[in-house]
Amino acid sequence: MRRSPELNLTISRPESGDIPLYLQVVEAIEKAIRIGQIGIGQRVPAERTLSHLLRVSRTTVTAAYRELEARGLLRGFVGRGTLVVASPADASGEALSWSQRSSSMARQANYLSYVHHQPDVVPFELGWQDSSLYPTESLNALLRELTQTASSDLYAPPSPAGDRSLQQAIVQWLEARDIRVNADNVLITAGAQQGLNILARAFLSPGDVVLTERPTFMGALMAFRWAGAEVVGVPSDEAGLQSDALEDMLAWHRPKLIYVMPTFQNPTGAILSRERRQQVLDIAARYRVPIIESDLYGDIYFDQKPPSPLKAMDKLDAVIYQGSFSKIAAPSLRVGWLVVPKGALPALLAAKAFEDLHTSTLTQRLVARFLESRHLDRHLATMRAECRRRRDHLAALLHEHVPTLQFRPPAGGYYLWARLPPPLTTDDLLPAAAVRGVAIRGGSSHMPERGGEDYIRLCFASVDTRQITKGVQRLAAAVGDSWDRLQTNAQRRSPRVSVI
Amino acid sequence: MRRSPELNLTISRPESGDIPLYLQVVEAIEKAIRIGQIGIGQRVPAERTLSHLLRVSRTTVTAAYRELEARGLLRGFVGRGTLVVASPADASGEALSWSQRSSSMARQANYLSYVHHQPDVVPFELGWQDSSLYPTESLNALLRELTQTASSDLYAPPSPAGDRSLQQAIVQWLEARDIRVNADNVLITAGAQQGLNILARAFLSPGDVVLTERPTFMGALMAFRWAGAEVVGVPSDEAGLQSDALEDMLAWHRPKLIYVMPTFQNPTGAILSRERRQQVLDIAARYRVPIIESDLYGDIYFDQKPPSPLKAMDKLDAVIYQGSFSKIAAPSLRVGWLVVPKGALPALLAAKAFEDLHTSTLTQRLVARFLESRHLDRHLATMRAECRRRRDHLAALLHEHVPTLQFRPPAGGYYLWARLPPPLTTDDLLPAAAVRGVAIRGGSSHMPERGGEDYIRLCFASVDTRQITKGVQRLAAAVGDSWDRLQTNAQRRSPRVSVI
Repeated sequence: MRRSPELNLTISRPESGDIPLYLQVVEAIEKAIRIGQIGIGQRVPAERTLSHLLRVSRTTVTAAYRELEARGLLRGFVGRGTLVVASPADASGEALSWSQRSSSMARQANYLSYVHHQPDVVPFELGWQDSSLYPTESLNALLRELTQTASSDLYAPPSPAGDRSLQQAIVQWLEARDIRVNADNVLITAGAQQGLNILARAFLSPGDVVLTERPTFMGALMAFRWAGAEVVGVPSDEAGLQSDALEDMLAWHRPKLIYVMPTFQNPTGAILSRERRQQVLDIAARYRVPIIESDLYGDIYFDQKPPSPLKAMDKLDAVIYQGSFSKIAAPSLRVGWLVVPKGALPALLAAKAFEDLHTSTLTQRLVARFLESRHLDRHLATMRAECRRRRDHLAALLHEHVPTLQFRPPAGGYYLWARLPPPLTTDDLLPAAAVRGVAIRGGSSHMPERGGEDYIRLCFASVDTRQITKGVQRLAAAVGDSWDRLQTNAQRRSPRVSVI
Repeated sequence: MRRSPELNLTISRPESGDIPLYLQVVEAIEKAIRIGQIGIGQRVPAERTLSHLLRVSRTTVTAAYRELEARGLLRGFVGRGTLVVASPADASGEALSWSQRSSSMARQANYLSYVHHQPDVVPFELGWQDSSLYPTESLNALLRELTQTASSDLYAPPSPAGDRSLQQAIVQWLEARDIRVNADNVLITAGAQQGLNILARAFLSPGDVVLTERPTFMGALMAFRWAGAEVVGVPSDEAGLQSDALEDMLAWHRPKLIYVMPTFQNPTGAILSRERRQQVLDIAARYRVPIIESDLYGDIYFDQKPPSPLKAMDKLDAVIYQGSFSKIAAPSLRVGWLVVPKGALPALLAAKAFEDLHTSTLTQRLVARFLESRHLDRHLATMRAECRRRRDHLAALLHEHVPTLQFRPPAGGYYLWARLPPPLTTDDLLPAAAVRGVAIRGGSSHMPERGGEDYIRLCFASVDTRQITKGVQRLAAAVGDSWDRLQTNAQRRSPRVSVI
């Protein structure tokens, strides 16, 4: 908890790292205006003063003031400083205040909509490939084919489970990955995120516990939390989830589900070792807890093929296996799938039908043809080579220009996970990076509980080598800026510690 | 509550009509087997006996036993009756029991997945048009065009709010309907159902109240309930929502939202009168309660153009307006939209991004072209003429063959809402209709609270005139069967009333 006593502004370190610091400052000031603590026409503190009072970096305050300016609440006047020019309700121009009516979950999720991109920003913080990696020509050719041969089928609703041709194509695809299932067990989703939401709807009730790796995928944290579940992180290292820790936590927390990404984990890039894969399955079986296995990056390996998925070793039908075409074809198709044991089908089908009835038939047919025609296999070879090239380039440049970052170059996937040199944290670095024109993901958004401010995630699939070069230069400059600021603040702060 | 004392089977009249009676019987018997009350190898009661014990129709028991047979739990043996052959866990063949792990909401929603269609069944119970009403040729031609001119844009992720070209095309489309908005206020959804889920996520917390017409759309009931809200029905008549009742209920329930379908309401087909439209807006403004206006059928009018939407008269920015291309183009595209006041955007964008990041770019671009090229306007003329022809045919045949049904032919939309002659209810009629090969929707699934067993909904957009003829004949036969059964049961039951 940090306070500015004059203004009675209070901001707290994010409970689980969800809300960036600068947005907390924005919200605190918005509230102060709304409740009349700072009136229209009054001056807000100078950036340096507020930075000092709240013990946040100056850049955080700058970012907060800019956001408040964009929202129409503040304006700078020459010679008079920054004044409040409207209250939150006026500023939105709304006669009826919608913003105060949103649900508590939506308020927590709000920050997602603040990810704006200036064209010149290097987007290391994204979670998808840039457009040069889409198989545009193949997809266009297949689409033309479909419109020539198709009857009205292309526009007719399939079962909520999915279009039969796609279910069958996925069965074939999985066979090559040592997973043998029937088409009836394949449930098509609008991408992996919807798959997680459906799982949450089907199996989670408020108060349930879900175990995940620590760190894990932000979208999974949100899906489970929105269903009212508590997410507990299991310690993970370079060989993935620690299976001995898992056993203790299963006994203690009695979770409803375990969610894991055994191959090229998001964000760490770790591969769960073969030995641990069997252990995780055995332990989960002993405690009779089902596993959700998310495998979105397994096909994007840079050296050798990774071990088979857990699902390939799942004799107990205790694993729901999740895949998607977003990372290996194009993110905007919104087609993913779940491999679902028979007993889990009714609840998941009900949840899927409830969400959006079914996924678009057109996109399902297009993806089915993309699989059947083996275009995807050829495209994967390109993806692997190009992502590997980018990883190499990023790793080499980071070693050279930001040598204080600690990381292990991943053997596949989209992400590089790096530790910041203490005491530098993302609270300092993220705003500085934004100012320098590079967007990075802070580690705390991947944490089931507190922590993660000492880590960043860089996506190398979203940027070509030219952009990587530019991005690393900017990142190096931002790290330099943050260091300078830390030192200045330390000097400034030391004689006044007792005052605050 | 109905009990079979011998077996201790208990079934209750559905709380809000969600679970069909026969499925309740299925579940009660499954439970009895699971807890060991009826063992494997034991005989279940004869259909007539159980029908009598539970005071449900024989057809309900027949349907329940068939379902249990399909699930592998029961089998009939010549000369020995119907025996339990497996327990629910064995029958699903699962080593780990998934079915017992589903959330309470998913269990309530399970029945959705039981809508199977035999090819020969006349599908009056659907909520979409048959494939002869899709604009297949136009869509195929536009798709080919898109693949020739498009760059990788067709596969690139848009903002969660939607593809700009579609947002703009919808702005034009709305202008012709007296609604003036900016493209920024248009949020694209994967059909109307997802729109409702997003609204629920954004604005509802457990314990909130939502007011709707009584009866209303089943998918809306589910969306609001899944968010933990209580849905309360406002009495409605042939001129729609009763505005005086609305005022009382606003004062009493202090709801978070009002959900209405002012034009060709689902299921009644009612049009909210011009006078009441203004009253509803004024009353809602006085109590400062936002309105969700769903307008999925307004363009499918058979005679004169209906009054302008509430949104066109919304000076307070208190209305979120919902539309979709499912009913007017093709259901499987999964493209709909919300018109959102500025203040409501952050929460709704967060909810949309959380659901599935964004709607497929390909389908958004296709629909945008469908609008821009005016193909949709031409297609609507066809839709209106054909749906009108079907309505006329259905209404005439019902008058002739099922004269005891009471209804008002709707002036637009997809549905005919009819009252059954007392004491006939859907508990009797639905299973009888299924046996005769016609599927109809029972009124109780449209009710916020109890009731509705005396109503049915017939969709005439899903069936051509030939099918309508066949369907009405079957419906007439099913009504006859139900009457016969009611009379037989009344005779049988009368001397034994005191026994049970």
